[in-house]
Amino acid sequence: MTRDPFDWIDASAEARRRAGLVRTLRPRPAEPDLLDLASNDYLGLARHPEVTGAAARAAQRWGAGSTGSRLVTGTTELHAELEAELAAFCGFEAALVFATGYAANLAAVTALTPSGALIVSDAGNHASLIDGCRLSRAETSVVPHRDPDAFRKTLDGHDGPALAITDSVFSVDGDAAPLRELAAVCQEAGAGLLVDDAHGLGVLGDGGRGTAAEAGLSGAPGLVCTVTLSKSLGSQGGAVLGPAPVIEHLVNSARTFIFDTGLAPAAAGGALAALRLLRGEPGRAARARTVARELHQRLTSAGLESAAPDACVLSVRAPGPQAAVQWAADCRAAGIAVGCFRPPSVPDGISRLRLSARADMTEGDIAEACDVIIRTAPRG
Amino acid sequence: MTRDPFDWIDASAEARRRAGLVRTLRPRPAEPDLLDLASNDYLGLARHPEVTGAAARAAQRWGAGSTGSRLVTGTTELHAELEAELAAFCGFEAALVFATGYAANLAAVTALTPSGALIVSDAGNHASLIDGCRLSRAETSVVPHRDPDAFRKTLDGHDGPALAITDSVFSVDGDAAPLRELAAVCQEAGAGLLVDDAHGLGVLGDGGRGTAAEAGLSGAPGLVCTVTLSKSLGSQGGAVLGPAPVIEHLVNSARTFIFDTGLAPAAAGGALAALRLLRGEPGRAARARTVARELHQRLTSAGLESAAPDACVLSVRAPGPQAAVQWAADCRAAGIAVGCFRPPSVPDGISRLRLSARADMTEGDIAEACDVIIRTAPRG
Repeated sequence: MTRDPFDWIDASAEARRRAGLVRTLRPRPAEPDLLDLASNDYLGLARHPEVTGAAARAAQRWGAGSTGSRLVTGTTELHAELEAELAAFCGFEAALVFATGYAANLAAVTALTPSGALIVSDAGNHASLIDGCRLSRAETSVVPHRDPDAFRKTLDGHDGPALAITDSVFSVDGDAAPLRELAAVCQEAGAGLLVDDAHGLGVLGDGGRGTAAEAGLSGAPGLVCTVTLSKSLGSQGGAVLGPAPVIEHLVNSARTFIFDTGLAPAAAGGALAALRLLRGEPGRAARARTVARELHQRLTSAGLESAAPDACVLSVRAPGPQAAVQWAADCRAAGIAVGCFRPPSVPDGISRLRLSARADMTEGDIAEACDVIIRTAPRG
Repeated sequence: MTRDPFDWIDASAEARRRAGLVRTLRPRPAEPDLLDLASNDYLGLARHPEVTGAAARAAQRWGAGSTGSRLVTGTTELHAELEAELAAFCGFEAALVFATGYAANLAAVTALTPSGALIVSDAGNHASLIDGCRLSRAETSVVPHRDPDAFRKTLDGHDGPALAITDSVFSVDGDAAPLRELAAVCQEAGAGLLVDDAHGLGVLGDGGRGTAAEAGLSGAPGLVCTVTLSKSLGSQGGAVLGPAPVIEHLVNSARTFIFDTGLAPAAAGGALAALRLLRGEPGRAARARTVARELHQRLTSAGLESAAPDACVLSVRAPGPQAAVQWAADCRAAGIAVGCFRPPSVPDGISRLRLSARADMTEGDIAEACDVIIRTAPRG
């Protein structure tokens, strides 16, 4: 080798070190040793015995992997069952399961935006939606965060297919999109609306049926929702929900569906069991929201800066990336796991703790977590 | 809704119907009812009791999902163990596990091609590598299939970082890249070499250590390999193998790593068990290759058109898309599952049956499969 072809990486690593932005992996043990306010396991189902039991049985019955593309050998009757129940629960005509939520978003954005189409995308959208826009052959216009008027003005005058794209609950701050207004704007403009409900399914809407259900929009002809199976459903994977012709179109044209191995049976089985638990115990969704409001009330009462949560995600502002890292480390040392979001993972460059509420947190858990977060907060 | 915003889909569905290119999902039952020559389960490990048992135990011990990004709560000690053993087995310094092979490829391509870099990509590369190129900010030059000279000429004269990208075994026809020649070209040009070894791991190299091992290139400083956990290892997921600084760079910058939920524990556990089986029974890789050669010998002796397989994938040419679909359906009716690749899944527009060899096929299985494929072949 005349020179190391990856030597440019050293300079970028050094720049990260200087800026205090180095990320390291922290493998966790099998038995939780921290009170979890960092995961997306909003309903506490990832370790529920009915969910883990169903995942285990699915691996033993259907195999450890799906063995191929969903179009070849990777579709089992278990996948079909999950898709039917997920669509019915959320009030959509059809559903299509992907190996990850990221893949579902790439699929939905690219397959629903033919050449000549216009994409209008909220500035706070998730990375997977942004990557979908980059992969699409359509023109993308990014509009200010949560601004239906900006969507309206951008769609206005465009001739041909158009797709408005938004998270339902934004993953960094946990704020919700103005979905009814966006739907009205899209309806007027004849545009499709793609909503990433990753953080809404299981938490918002009647019994956790999701953001579209909460807005009375489930199954609307111009609406397509994506969800994950890895958050409230405690498993892995993603899904696209929408009209049957849209789903058929994805089967035939979405590259991350056609060219990726199907979701492992254990993940499909785990998600299906979690969905059935949620259907049977609709109070879980409301409890998760209550926990989020209690966390927010306690933290802001103590003077911390945090917007009221629309779902289960709260963010608490930190003075800077290093202070945020220290704060999260202090919480961890005191037994509380919290998320720490810094550039480049945050669109606005503001570092913060990211907290998630779980339906299975007790009053004691809430009090303990808040005590630690308040006690370890950086002096402003 | 003034009009259905997805009405343009109907025309594209109608065009597919007319061209005989409609794809439909065929959910399979839990107990296999067909002899499988369609999956990527090359070593027959997806249903091996040690693999399914390990997947089941992992779900019960670690949870049905990983509950978050690998950077937040999604890394368990099980992930770390899998990464260490995978890197050691394949002869690389470090490994990083992703939720899918598709995500691993998107990560490797985008993170290893900074702005101003040049990508040189084989025309036959997998869709996930192509999407990685589209997502990268680097300039991409697509060169003819398996042509080291074309790589050399394109790299020549480029100043700054460059990355050559190739599949090791191409997924449609099963032909192998000229890896040693490509490595020599890259070394001379100071370019990195990214090899997607999805169809090489477990099949090629000493005991299935992969294509880099076979070429004597494992752990070379300019080489990065991606692998899947969903083919020979019978599970789900992907991984990137390479020098430790490259892996650290991916942890810090790869969007499909940072913004995606970590691989489910069951998939990590299943893949780890499969890797250990392979290490303990190195003859599995050689057996899989022998089966592939036997299938090829029998089919070509009967006059079918198929190139000699370099690994476990064979493709058999069909006269057109409808004939290919009919042929695959006739095989299925006779108890044999085969893949059927048609446009747009094939880069050259040629429809074919795609067959995969499995290490656990008996001589009787091979004879039966070939008899059916030959008997049902379209009259040329």
